[in-house]
Amino acid sequence: MESIKVFCPATIANISCGFDVLGAALDTVGDEMIVAKTAEKGIRITKIIGQDLPLETEKNVAGVAGLALLAQAKYDGGFDIEIHKNIKPGSGIGSSAASSAGAVWAMNALLGKPFSPSELVGFAMQGEKVASQVAHADNVAPALFGGFTLVRSYKPLDIVPLPTPEELYATVIHPQIEVKTSDSRNILKTKITLKDGIQQWGNLGGLVAGLFRSDYELIGRSLQDIIVEPIRSILIPSFEDIKITAMQVGALGCGISGSGPSVFALSKGKANAERVADQMKKVYQPLDIDFDIHISSINQQGIKIIS
Amino acid sequence: MESIKVFCPATIANISCGFDVLGAALDTVGDEMIVAKTAEKGIRITKIIGQDLPLETEKNVAGVAGLALLAQAKYDGGFDIEIHKNIKPGSGIGSSAASSAGAVWAMNALLGKPFSPSELVGFAMQGEKVASQVAHADNVAPALFGGFTLVRSYKPLDIVPLPTPEELYATVIHPQIEVKTSDSRNILKTKITLKDGIQQWGNLGGLVAGLFRSDYELIGRSLQDIIVEPIRSILIPSFEDIKITAMQVGALGCGISGSGPSVFALSKGKANAERVADQMKKVYQPLDIDFDIHISSINQQGIKIIS
Repeated sequence: MESIKVFCPATIANISCGFDVLGAALDTVGDEMIVAKTAEKGIRITKIIGQDLPLETEKNVAGVAGLALLAQAKYDGGFDIEIHKNIKPGSGIGSSAASSAGAVWAMNALLGKPFSPSELVGFAMQGEKVASQVAHADNVAPALFGGFTLVRSYKPLDIVPLPTPEELYATVIHPQIEVKTSDSRNILKTKITLKDGIQQWGNLGGLVAGLFRSDYELIGRSLQDIIVEPIRSILIPSFEDIKITAMQVGALGCGISGSGPSVFALSKGKANAERVADQMKKVYQPLDIDFDIHISSINQQGIKIIS
Repeated sequence: MESIKVFCPATIANISCGFDVLGAALDTVGDEMIVAKTAEKGIRITKIIGQDLPLETEKNVAGVAGLALLAQAKYDGGFDIEIHKNIKPGSGIGSSAASSAGAVWAMNALLGKPFSPSELVGFAMQGEKVASQVAHADNVAPALFGGFTLVRSYKPLDIVPLPTPEELYATVIHPQIEVKTSDSRNILKTKITLKDGIQQWGNLGGLVAGLFRSDYELIGRSLQDIIVEPIRSILIPSFEDIKITAMQVGALGCGISGSGPSVFALSKGKANAERVADQMKKVYQPLDIDFDIHISSINQQGIKIIS
């Protein structure tokens, strides 16, 4: 195998009570990448279609993630990478993670899988660092593993894939305003009350149990974020209205995707996710804000070869 | 049925990363209570064997919990309660919870089970309030449900019973020094860093996943408490030595039981739990501190009728 084309899913990170630790992959939104082995050493980003992003390897998240892998690989050649960018950068659904994870996943496949999925997370995090200064894992892990994934620990890195109930669907609305990940981090408080912490980890425990039991009601009761959402939501136009109307039509929960500005809701069943989408649209249509909206089952597989 | 005798298990609360939300019940340590219906209204504590505790209904945790149930019950009579107290008050393994939970569980059984387990938790919490000023649920919930239980939320009360891997054993050492629950609460900081919070809820998610998968290694990696243990452990003589030696002989994790002074370790298998007990004894024997030590499988059933 000298060249493959892969699908790299968009991902929702910071899922409510799972700030910095819990993410999930989507099925219907993602980038495509063509990665080819070359005799020439190093990594070249040969083409980016769909977005205006840097072609220089050291400035491109896929390039940096790829170089991290290449530094550890027993391989004398290099790789050419062509990126068909469908996920808008800065949307909050793991645009940089899809490129970082896709690059290292494809390279690993072409090399005969010398690296474990957890090692790939480590390489892809180097790409994430280029995009947001912080080497976070809660987008690249679900992109690589599929489904819901928990980052139990960063030092050492410990990724725990979680079961994904079959009828769980996501609705994601992306208002086309700019919220920089770094800004979104800077407005967070560095301290929280112990009382709020207890409530947050109680909810995270409930959410994990709900995923294992496919207990949609428990998932719904647990999808709460009393720590980050109250602060970050001020950066997102009409967040409260989006959330209230989504919950009114039966969403299990609703929160900020990643560091925003996208807002996600989880529903039981596709029909419900579509009703949520309709309501979200109704909130944004009267405002002077362009938006994209996505409805997707949760991707169980992660990155996959499409040709 | 006019009278029953029940076994009320001791419980470990505040299990490492699950501060205030996660508890587990023990099999081999517990109180026995004889509860009998009476034509006379109200509740009488007729006898307490084994410990010097108040017989006045309003000052006794079982009495107060029972009165909370009685206020909601459609029942014209009352109850006599006799308590055989094997769990030492102030030990940190749910002494007051065993009495509170045992009283309401037995009364509910005698009345034909008009109340759900969750409602019983609510009544028993009223007893807990007498003992420690705070109506916490992380001892009474496992006493009533058995196994590991998560208190996802206090308002509204939401108890999530978790699966308990079969080979999980607890070793609990109770140094006979006094640590008041209220003191133990007062030394805690009211604020924590967001960074520590993230690590704590990552671990709690991992622990819940480990319990569902019977993944003892994941349970072990997740049994960490970076928030409360570093502060409270200064109240417990030789805590560090106890923990280090327990881990050296293969304990999955080790922490403070409840608000102390008891220290628990979890192990895979009874033989390992016994090795841990031997090591713990070696730490305390040279010191001038009396101690009890318990080895127990995790109680899967909760309170049960013994005659």
